[in-house]
Amino acid sequence: MSDQKLKNKLPTIHQTRKVASSRLFEIEALDLEFSNGEKREYERLVSRGVGAVLIVPILRKEGQEDTVLLIREYAAGTERYELAFPKGKVEVGEETLHAANREIMEEVGYQSGKLTLLKALSLAPGYLGHVTNIILAEDLSERREEGDEPEEIEVVPWKLSEIDQLIERDDFAEGRSVAAVYLLKQHLAKNP
Amino acid sequence: MSDQKLKNKLPTIHQTRKVASSRLFEIEALDLEFSNGEKREYERLVSRGVGAVLIVPILRKEGQEDTVLLIREYAAGTERYELAFPKGKVEVGEETLHAANREIMEEVGYQSGKLTLLKALSLAPGYLGHVTNIILAEDLSERREEGDEPEEIEVVPWKLSEIDQLIERDDFAEGRSVAAVYLLKQHLAKNP
Repeated sequence: MSDQKLKNKLPTIHQTRKVASSRLFEIEALDLEFSNGEKREYERLVSRGVGAVLIVPILRKEGQEDTVLLIREYAAGTERYELAFPKGKVEVGEETLHAANREIMEEVGYQSGKLTLLKALSLAPGYLGHVTNIILAEDLSERREEGDEPEEIEVVPWKLSEIDQLIERDDFAEGRSVAAVYLLKQHLAKNP
Repeated sequence: MSDQKLKNKLPTIHQTRKVASSRLFEIEALDLEFSNGEKREYERLVSRGVGAVLIVPILRKEGQEDTVLLIREYAAGTERYELAFPKGKVEVGEETLHAANREIMEEVGYQSGKLTLLKALSLAPGYLGHVTNIILAEDLSERREEGDEPEEIEVVPWKLSEIDQLIERDDFAEGRSVAAVYLLKQHLAKNP
């Protein structure tokens, strides 16, 4: 089953052209021809950056239950505060794991001595090339760096033993964060 | 922990204005003022539709192992064929569960007698308002409807007993699809 071959050949991209752009976004139209001769015009958002990181920081303290550190931050797309894992863009020339450590220093006030890439996730591959690297951050020690957030980010520690209840919350709804919980559970099952 | 109150008040949106648009997309700029007086200009993609559905179809056949039905489809954002669950837009005026049933008739050739909403997921809440309803489709029977796909969609049955191996594949990387596997496993654990 896992070795099933691709039935279709990749479509030919005859042309791409910029059709709209703003300060942050750029939209491109593609003239595609599928291997059966069918032609379509698709649109996609151009990924300007080099990807993003979403970090699962696990805090282990003597005599206390293990927690993951979530943040609650304003989201302009949904116009509300959302509970999610810390995340951010990788800067040009920056290593992915370095970006992960920078983001948690800025957003939750910890640095990590052990960073592990769990999986690279796509967002909406039909119209976004965007990649988010899901990174586990262990061996945490306190260290805060200044970020560019407009207001102080609320850090919400969540007990690892109650992580399934997190998924049931309406304000914990980001696909990548839900996927990250799954990847975390799988990793911890294999690396107890 | 779960009753923690919101520390910050929602920012005030002083103005929104269209800054770019194409055939499919529209980009909006927002003038925001956070409750601490900090002002920022954010941008977001306007969601034109009424949301999307992503369907987890489970096929149970006498004497055979249960499978989930995946599709392999060309994705213009990543320029490759991606393995994922069937999905599509909800049409205006259409019920969410009806849209789920329409999509699986078009994409995998089955209709479902038992549809269950597992969770509504957001995609990138910072700049997208988009909502994807993750829907479990059981009680399947063969029925195909014509969709508007440019080429025949390849249906890939995957054994439920091997679902953890699916997550390890590089071509199964969409955040929403990975999250859907987790939601499916949680649902089946509670409803065996």
